[in-house]
Amino acid sequence: MTERTQEAVSYLNVIESRRSVRAYDPSFRLERSELEALIQEATLAPSSANLQPWRFLIIDDPQLQEVVFPIANSQEQVRTASAVIAILGDLQCYEHLEEIYGEAVARGYMTQEIKESFVARVSAMLPAMSEQQRKEMAMFDGGLATMQLMLSARAKGLDTVPMAGFDKDKFKEAFAIPDRFAPLLLVAVGKAEKEGHPTTRLPVERVTFWNDHFNA
Amino acid sequence: MTERTQEAVSYLNVIESRRSVRAYDPSFRLERSELEALIQEATLAPSSANLQPWRFLIIDDPQLQEVVFPIANSQEQVRTASAVIAILGDLQCYEHLEEIYGEAVARGYMTQEIKESFVARVSAMLPAMSEQQRKEMAMFDGGLATMQLMLSARAKGLDTVPMAGFDKDKFKEAFAIPDRFAPLLLVAVGKAEKEGHPTTRLPVERVTFWNDHFNA
Repeated sequence: MTERTQEAVSYLNVIESRRSVRAYDPSFRLERSELEALIQEATLAPSSANLQPWRFLIIDDPQLQEVVFPIANSQEQVRTASAVIAILGDLQCYEHLEEIYGEAVARGYMTQEIKESFVARVSAMLPAMSEQQRKEMAMFDGGLATMQLMLSARAKGLDTVPMAGFDKDKFKEAFAIPDRFAPLLLVAVGKAEKEGHPTTRLPVERVTFWNDHFNA
Repeated sequence: MTERTQEAVSYLNVIESRRSVRAYDPSFRLERSELEALIQEATLAPSSANLQPWRFLIIDDPQLQEVVFPIANSQEQVRTASAVIAILGDLQCYEHLEEIYGEAVARGYMTQEIKESFVARVSAMLPAMSEQQRKEMAMFDGGLATMQLMLSARAKGLDTVPMAGFDKDKFKEAFAIPDRFAPLLLVAVGKAEKEGHPTTRLPVERVTFWNDHFNA
């Protein structure tokens, strides 16, 4: 699970070997630095105006995993995986605009002038969006980052399973999550005890349409 | 851009070299088989109950790319990229339940018994969700598949840029998209003429929280 191991893993192998794994080795615990490495790689994903509207609540305390268990429909992986990562959408992500673009200027990726016009434009646009629109933005961008997180885990020999089915209100309450953060998804991560089973996909021609020939 | 080339590309290299590219070589056109290969790899992404609520409208006719241009805020990449792929959410994705799970049984991935209990459960649940809830499910799952699409493109030496800013109603009208499909995002794909510029990310510790220590 070192950087070197990961570099040797081909992209194609990673996407083809990723499965949703629901049986984990409960004795295997990830180091915090390993979990942080997953987050770091996940955040390389792009987001609308680079606003990075995702936050990650990592639950790796076994007692707190027990708290999540009933909230997440008693799915066994919640307590046997090394950690449960909650993907949260930050509905006020535009407050970090100065910080994000300021850093881009400091690194010479952007001129001060471009930064200022960009910040002015996004600052006007985002707060004018409804909370629902901002949540939707966070959902799509959250999906992008979550896919990268799951692939990064696979590249490191780990397994994951995304869980959309959990009681979001109870989860917010149990973990004292402020209202600005919307829980979007839970991801269990750990070492598989039993391989995930293969699944099928609709054939490409059933999900693809070309140009103006739209036939549902 | 062969399978062999791709296998040689490491996962880490793919995620680190992916950038949002806005300047494309307009003379470079992708074959339809190459575009289909991207879709095929994208669809290996997981989705809620494996419902695969995404559809892909690939616009590779230059005249139709011109039609998208004003709808997508006159972003130059819309007409210079090899293709624009619209990610659509299928709000009635549960209609494909029999097809998806039937195939899983046919391949021996699932018993007939498990299939039937699963189909009954999901068939009862999905239509009871509001259209908004189904759209949100499609947005998150669409994000997962789109990230994989962009990474697969990078692994093949191609570049992409996701575009959330476009007039969804005008797009639906221009391409006669049935109401069951919600346009979620456009992705331009092609051969970069100019490299994408690097961007910054908030440090891991600014976007990560642990267990019950929630401090916004």
